[in-house]
Amino acid sequence: MFIRRQEDVIPVDLTREEGVRGVELRPLITKQDGARNFAMRLFRLKPAGHTPFHAHSWEHEVFVVCGSGVVEDEDASLAVEEGMAIYVLPDEKHRFRAAEQGMTFICCIPNPPE
Amino acid sequence: MFIRRQEDVIPVDLTREEGVRGVELRPLITKQDGARNFAMRLFRLKPAGHTPFHAHSWEHEVFVVCGSGVVEDEDASLAVEEGMAIYVLPDEKHRFRAAEQGMTFICCIPNPPE
Repeated sequence: MFIRRQEDVIPVDLTREEGVRGVELRPLITKQDGARNFAMRLFRLKPAGHTPFHAHSWEHEVFVVCGSGVVEDEDASLAVEEGMAIYVLPDEKHRFRAAEQGMTFICCIPNPPE
Repeated sequence: MFIRRQEDVIPVDLTREEGVRGVELRPLITKQDGARNFAMRLFRLKPAGHTPFHAHSWEHEVFVVCGSGVVEDEDASLAVEEGMAIYVLPDEKHRFRAAEQGMTFICCIPNPPE
């Protein structure tokens, strides 16, 4: 067992990532810790911050810890807020965008195949 | 993509579970939703509420959303609070116990093998 404070996890450098604005990503539990199936990451989006509009072959399981914003796909922009869960399918285009007060969420992803 | 409010998820009936006290468990995203790798569940522990002291072959990846308490294993009782991540290894005995104000956490588990 281990316990980890989010402040003790060094954020990933996203400055070179296209389409990212005001996002702090902390990998809380990963394969490097021995987690053999999936990873848990914490995202902090600043006001109006957003992730890239992209798609990939793995799913997202998300829980909004605080704040609010929208999650966008190719057809719609859906309002999300604290206490909501979001499932993004594999290969589905998506973007998370924070409202004025920012948004913090947990996002879990499967480990890549061996 | 789907979005789900925690209030719209029916809690699992835990009244027959031995060693459980004051726990509300809501499966937010599961295999039944098409999530092929892992499930995301929300636990709300009332003040002094606790999960059973047990072990199983799968890991837990946990994030404390609000409140505080302890996570116990066979050797220790470790304080946990809002914003902390906890990894419980497969086959490790564990129990989550809330302090006076209760504790809410996300707990993700892998899907069982096919």
